[in-house]
Amino acid sequence: MNDSKGLAIAFEEAKLSYQEGGIPIGAALIASDGTVLGRGHNMRIQNGNPILHGETSTLQNAGRLPATSYKGSTMYTTLSPCDMCTGACLLYGISRVVIGENKTFLGGEAYLKQRGVEVLIADDTECRELMEKFIAEKPEVWNEDIGV
Amino acid sequence: MNDSKGLAIAFEEAKLSYQEGGIPIGAALIASDGTVLGRGHNMRIQNGNPILHGETSTLQNAGRLPATSYKGSTMYTTLSPCDMCTGACLLYGISRVVIGENKTFLGGEAYLKQRGVEVLIADDTECRELMEKFIAEKPEVWNEDIGV
Ligand SMILES: [Ca+2]
Ligand SMILES: [Ca+2]
Ligand SMILES: [Zn+2]
Ligand SMILES: [Zn+2]
Repeated sequence: MNDSKGLAIAFEEAKLSYQEGGIPIGAALIASDGTVLGRGHNMRIQNGNPILHGETSTLQNAGRLPATSYKGSTMYTTLSPCDMCTGACLLYGISRVVIGENKTFLGGEAYLKQRGVEVLIADDTECRELMEKFIAEKPEVWNEDIGV
Repeated sequence: MNDSKGLAIAFEEAKLSYQEGGIPIGAALIASDGTVLGRGHNMRIQNGNPILHGETSTLQNAGRLPATSYKGSTMYTTLSPCDMCTGACLLYGISRVVIGENKTFLGGEAYLKQRGVEVLIADDTECRELMEKFIAEKPEVWNEDIGV
């Protein structure tokens, strides 16, 4: 699987969350052989849940996996991962993190690299524009989601 | 609320998880005024969920909160927090992390301190002995939980 296909799944999830009235951040976890292990989106509003960000939701949906399944995998996420999601990727030894955009929020990218994770920024316009729209519409929910 | 009372709640949660056949790690989030905002335990086995550690389960059970609620709060956890739970505490600006023990697993304590979080190690014998018992009984589940 190429990176644009993985990021397209993450963006589908982000749009789905927006349609549900939620925070439009999505993610997908893809194994080294191209298998989609999981996909998901932020569920703060939908479930009243503060730990279901795009990436953690994806890990939850992927279910219980042995460490070997995460090895060589890539986490695709529409937005730069917050500290929690950064830590979740580190816990499971995810090898690569591909990020849609980091203009509306800058998370733990430097720490991921410091810990040996490959980080790529796609600088995707659609991801950025969807977040900009949401932040303008619901700034207080967005601040809550990033602990501000 | 003093720290021994907060840690006692976390240990109750750890024992509860053990009784459920789960990984015996518990936590409690307590506000600066002593209010118990949430409590919880690892749910990997019970729910087949890889993101519900003691601390994240506690944050989930606390529900949606504004940033001000986390300010000055303490996360009590029976075991040194993994990278994911370390990041979750950082995301929400939790001020203090009180840890039952760090002998059976050493997580992100140094990074928490580096980021300005107060970290206390209780070096609690009951917390350690319960984890030692569990790890001896189910080493493969424990390795899965820490991505090994
Ligand atoms: Ca695009
Ligand atoms: Ca004790
Ligand atoms: Zn996140
Ligand atoms: Zn953890």
